[in-house]
Amino acid sequence: MKRVSFLLVFISFVIQAQNLTGFLGENTQRQIEWEKKFLSIPKSQNCERHLFILTEEPHPAGSEAGYKVAFYIDSVFKSYGLNSKIVDYWAYLPYPEEVVLEMTQPSRIKFDLKETSWLWDKDTYDDNIFTFFNAYSPDGEVEAQVVYVNYGLPEDYEKLKELGIDVRGKIVMARYGKSFRGVKAKVAEENGAIGLIIYSDPMDDGYMKGDVYPRGPWRPEGAVQRGSIYYMFEYPGDPLTPGYPATKDAKRISPEQAKSLPKVPTMPVSYGIAKVILENLSGPVVPEEWQGGLPFAYHTGPGPAKVKMKIKSNWKIRQIKNVVAELRGFEEPEKKIIFGNHHDAWVYGAVDPNSGTAVMLETARALSELVKSGWRPKRSIVFCAWDAEEYGLIGSTEWVEDNYNDLVKNAIAYINVDVAVSGKNFGASAVPSLDRFIEEVIKSVDDPETGNSIFVEAWKNQNKNSSSNPPDTARIKIGRLGSGSDYTAFLDYAGIPSIDMRFTGPYGVYHSQLDNFYWMKNFCDPTFKYHETMCKIVGIALMRLSSADYLPFNYVDYADEVEKYVNQIEKNYGAKLKSNGIDFASVKEKLKLFKIYADSLFRIRNSLVKIELQKIEQKFTRKSGLPNRDWYKHRIYAPGYYLGYGSQPLPGISEMLYSGNFDAVKREIKLLEEAIEDVIKEMQTILKNKREVK
Amino acid sequence: MKRVSFLLVFISFVIQAQNLTGFLGENTQRQIEWEKKFLSIPKSQNCERHLFILTEEPHPAGSEAGYKVAFYIDSVFKSYGLNSKIVDYWAYLPYPEEVVLEMTQPSRIKFDLKETSWLWDKDTYDDNIFTFFNAYSPDGEVEAQVVYVNYGLPEDYEKLKELGIDVRGKIVMARYGKSFRGVKAKVAEENGAIGLIIYSDPMDDGYMKGDVYPRGPWRPEGAVQRGSIYYMFEYPGDPLTPGYPATKDAKRISPEQAKSLPKVPTMPVSYGIAKVILENLSGPVVPEEWQGGLPFAYHTGPGPAKVKMKIKSNWKIRQIKNVVAELRGFEEPEKKIIFGNHHDAWVYGAVDPNSGTAVMLETARALSELVKSGWRPKRSIVFCAWDAEEYGLIGSTEWVEDNYNDLVKNAIAYINVDVAVSGKNFGASAVPSLDRFIEEVIKSVDDPETGNSIFVEAWKNQNKNSSSNPPDTARIKIGRLGSGSDYTAFLDYAGIPSIDMRFTGPYGVYHSQLDNFYWMKNFCDPTFKYHETMCKIVGIALMRLSSADYLPFNYVDYADEVEKYVNQIEKNYGAKLKSNGIDFASVKEKLKLFKIYADSLFRIRNSLVKIELQKIEQKFTRKSGLPNRDWYKHRIYAPGYYLGYGSQPLPGISEMLYSGNFDAVKREIKLLEEAIEDVIKEMQTILKNKREVK
Repeated sequence: MKRVSFLLVFISFVIQAQNLTGFLGENTQRQIEWEKKFLSIPKSQNCERHLFILTEEPHPAGSEAGYKVAFYIDSVFKSYGLNSKIVDYWAYLPYPEEVVLEMTQPSRIKFDLKETSWLWDKDTYDDNIFTFFNAYSPDGEVEAQVVYVNYGLPEDYEKLKELGIDVRGKIVMARYGKSFRGVKAKVAEENGAIGLIIYSDPMDDGYMKGDVYPRGPWRPEGAVQRGSIYYMFEYPGDPLTPGYPATKDAKRISPEQAKSLPKVPTMPVSYGIAKVILENLSGPVVPEEWQGGLPFAYHTGPGPAKVKMKIKSNWKIRQIKNVVAELRGFEEPEKKIIFGNHHDAWVYGAVDPNSGTAVMLETARALSELVKSGWRPKRSIVFCAWDAEEYGLIGSTEWVEDNYNDLVKNAIAYINVDVAVSGKNFGASAVPSLDRFIEEVIKSVDDPETGNSIFVEAWKNQNKNSSSNPPDTARIKIGRLGSGSDYTAFLDYAGIPSIDMRFTGPYGVYHSQLDNFYWMKNFCDPTFKYHETMCKIVGIALMRLSSADYLPFNYVDYADEVEKYVNQIEKNYGAKLKSNGIDFASVKEKLKLFKIYADSLFRIRNSLVKIELQKIEQKFTRKSGLPNRDWYKHRIYAPGYYLGYGSQPLPGISEMLYSGNFDAVKREIKLLEEAIEDVIKEMQTILKNKREVK
Repeated sequence: MKRVSFLLVFISFVIQAQNLTGFLGENTQRQIEWEKKFLSIPKSQNCERHLFILTEEPHPAGSEAGYKVAFYIDSVFKSYGLNSKIVDYWAYLPYPEEVVLEMTQPSRIKFDLKETSWLWDKDTYDDNIFTFFNAYSPDGEVEAQVVYVNYGLPEDYEKLKELGIDVRGKIVMARYGKSFRGVKAKVAEENGAIGLIIYSDPMDDGYMKGDVYPRGPWRPEGAVQRGSIYYMFEYPGDPLTPGYPATKDAKRISPEQAKSLPKVPTMPVSYGIAKVILENLSGPVVPEEWQGGLPFAYHTGPGPAKVKMKIKSNWKIRQIKNVVAELRGFEEPEKKIIFGNHHDAWVYGAVDPNSGTAVMLETARALSELVKSGWRPKRSIVFCAWDAEEYGLIGSTEWVEDNYNDLVKNAIAYINVDVAVSGKNFGASAVPSLDRFIEEVIKSVDDPETGNSIFVEAWKNQNKNSSSNPPDTARIKIGRLGSGSDYTAFLDYAGIPSIDMRFTGPYGVYHSQLDNFYWMKNFCDPTFKYHETMCKIVGIALMRLSSADYLPFNYVDYADEVEKYVNQIEKNYGAKLKSNGIDFASVKEKLKLFKIYADSLFRIRNSLVKIELQKIEQKFTRKSGLPNRDWYKHRIYAPGYYLGYGSQPLPGISEMLYSGNFDAVKREIKLLEEAIEDVIKEMQTILKNKREVK
């Protein structure tokens, strides 16, 4: 018995003496104890109650119901003693006024553009639910034969050309998936289509994935995916104030001048409607990978199906409301960690975005409680509930443009938790310098069902549900940030290290009226335990970033990643690069140096107290933006122009190579080199200061 | 001009001086000229006329209509001056008498077990069409809840066990594909199911593949795949006369003694019917790869769908009729090349088998014409139209058992052309010693649409429709022979080098009444040019094998293949082999020697005149058959016990490893070693004789 207790003491000593990246000496143990306290505070019931209130009404940006949600969030923050305020902007937001879709050939059918209602769920009967609507579609009335274009990617149109199918003057029909819907609109425009219908194929989020509502969580034939087709890849934020805040009296460009506004009338439909149209297409049978899950062989068209679509929106500059609440730091209150998510929803938005909002509110409570118990974070934590994300990341973008100088000076990191809970599988995207930080955070939080750490679960999930445990050296795959949520302005415009986190799962009701409280309660997180778990994850992350002695950023991973991207480009474009006299020799030299300094920083990380490691990220941005889209400043990451949501590493170089503009490629390589040089200089300064400080 | 004509003369000299494997000196040029003459003889119109007559009525084995087909074939052969005769056997063949299927829960539906009829095709109205029927299903009436078992493979049942689903006492529902339907019955039996329904999923040969009939060639919801579930993997041929010919007065075992007769009532259904049953299953959603093409998420069951099935057959010993016609050789008439295909069909069998029969008849005419013009093949060519293949390769198996001694002495090779034309893509399976022979043959025949050689087309097709031409060293993939057609007894029982060839394509009406003349004419080979082309391919093959100075067999490829199989087994079972003290060291030593001799034979192939190279193949057979299925004698190839159609290399070793019987593995390795030793000895004898002869 004695031996055993000795062993226990020894083990507990080892545990207590564990390292925690960012913390030194006794601060480590202190932090661990505060974290332990913190982990007991978040409560699933509170998340549930918030979600119930937040999803009471359809609350798109700029609506009365939307304002009510903002007021609720503000009042909750205030009730925790936080310094909360509502920050208004004025954005150009269309509301659907009239949307009509009719098949006129081979037979005449007028479609009902309303999602199916269900007796047991009163939310599905609300009169204020937007009809089938793609925000920012231009107004217009068009009638033409239909062509099926698969996902509507550039290569899909190439394939159609090979098959001899011309989409000019036609209405194209694309399925959701693979690219952001705004990109589908852009590519349709480039190919000369006069209208675009986007539908949800049952292969992508319907019955081919699993049981559909009400038997299961997947999309039924009567549910539609709404969404904006705003050309966010040009610039996000208010269309009429690109690059500066959309304050009430800001000078505005005209809609005609806004490069970010789509040109082709576009609307979404359910697969109930898509079936009728696609069934009436002739022309060749589609290539094998184009076949979806509807029960017939797909054809490309054109025709005989002909449709008439009419779209008319109510275009207005509408007030939007961000809620910004501060938990003030005790040593460097001007330095801040920002935790953000939007609060506007296409309809009820139980998953998107209010699972994240519920998590934010409960995390704010837990951290406020902790402060009341004596916790003293060094830096401030800022909670931001953005408005009008769905339209085009507007609330967050305007705020970043508005607070640019303060942010580049004082923002340590931005953490985004939007679609917080659509299932049980943890996922994260980030800049590479934060990969290890995320891994360390989720090693400290347990999965509520298995009791394993979230890290172990994520690793198992990524390793084909391995039954063994991860080895000590295990890493998990962390994605890179493209776009589709509010980290965009923080990372791509201001160069602030960013993270996006979520629990994912069988989520077939995205942007449908079915993404509501009933669905969450019945198909997703009935006990709200995964909401509670996300509070713990993001809370621990905020606690560490706000209290660390030195910032837990690791640039070795970053250097490796950039090197990988360069190698990939050389592999893809080897011959073309050579014949155009382009090489990466000089970039690679710089990368070597980058790596050496990153390594030095990592090895002496314990000495980097009070040194602003986060500034390294900013050095990747240039004043001049990416070619043809000046708003995007970051040289390593941007949403791919033709991906929209997906991250495009080395975006300037990659996209200029793709379009064959080799002079621009050379310029972009030069800019990349300069960026890396600046990164190195920043690192040198840090290393120099370090010696002086410690 | 002079220069050009000199060049032409030179080129034509080069062409004329080309090598043709198997031919020496001036015989090469003579053969090339005869082949040129031959290639102009086969006519698509004749193929069309034969097919029209052959497919006039449903003609299953043992029926009056079947006899009529045999008489027609016999009379056509005779009209060409061939020595044709009908060879009868008496086989145990069930005919459907009563087949009933009813869903009894959750609602009562009695299904109509008749394929959909179509106004424009009188063949779809014939009263003599078999109902939905799996031949050799035992009689019985069962009622139980249904469980969906995917393809009904052993691993599918394993998966169900993991999910906690017990199929004992249930009726299982499997989709066609991946394994021979008899194997599905066997695995259902092993797992304790009391009934089996096999259906055609639209993902496998219906609308997910392309347009369904009448818009296209794929299976519509009202069409069924009939077929035998005979346990051919135990032994093919008549159930009551295993290993000896089913002559009229042969001693017969009782059906109870026949290991090859299935035990679980089994029937096929269309996806029109399957939809109703599968839609009414509960239980867990199936694993992702189990989802088929019906428009809902599949569940495993059991129930609530409950079905009642009743099967009663008319079991009789019925007369069957092979037609055997000889084109007599002029130097060694006792040596023979056999060209075979069956003539019985489940319904009309336009593709399966009569596209092959039409090809056989027209090839026979062309070769007969050639003989009339003075062609003098050294060896005989024997045309065999088998009966009762559909039931269990019965006609061919009985004939091989009947003529075993002559065949092992005199048969040079067996060429099977069953499903000759279901499309335009050439495919072949063979023993590896014939790979290069096939390639050389199809380099001499042109594709009727592109004008490229069939070899070039096959290569392009196998290389993702490459637009470039194959390099000089290009090889095409040639499959290995499993089972499913009449080469089985020749290769697996008698060790005769075999080939199977076909043109494949979008063939969705396999074993349906829609596999008829209308379908062939509208969806497959409207001009019958691919029939004509197959006549040319098989004709050239027969001409070369019957006239060659030395046999164009290459055992280097064979040695390589066997080595590959051994390595694969070592890779798959490394640790298990080691822990059971099993190694392949000695086999590998022998294989080295095999390769050295194969190489010698290849290098001095020109000197191997009148030497019976084909006997090498026989040395791979052993008197004692495979473990648990004595009929199968070949040690390198057999149909996989749990595959049925698929080839299982080193079947004895592989299957004993799979079942974990390591003593049997050791015995099988010993037998493989002995076989390779015998092969080597045979090669040594050949090499010795060679020196004496030349």
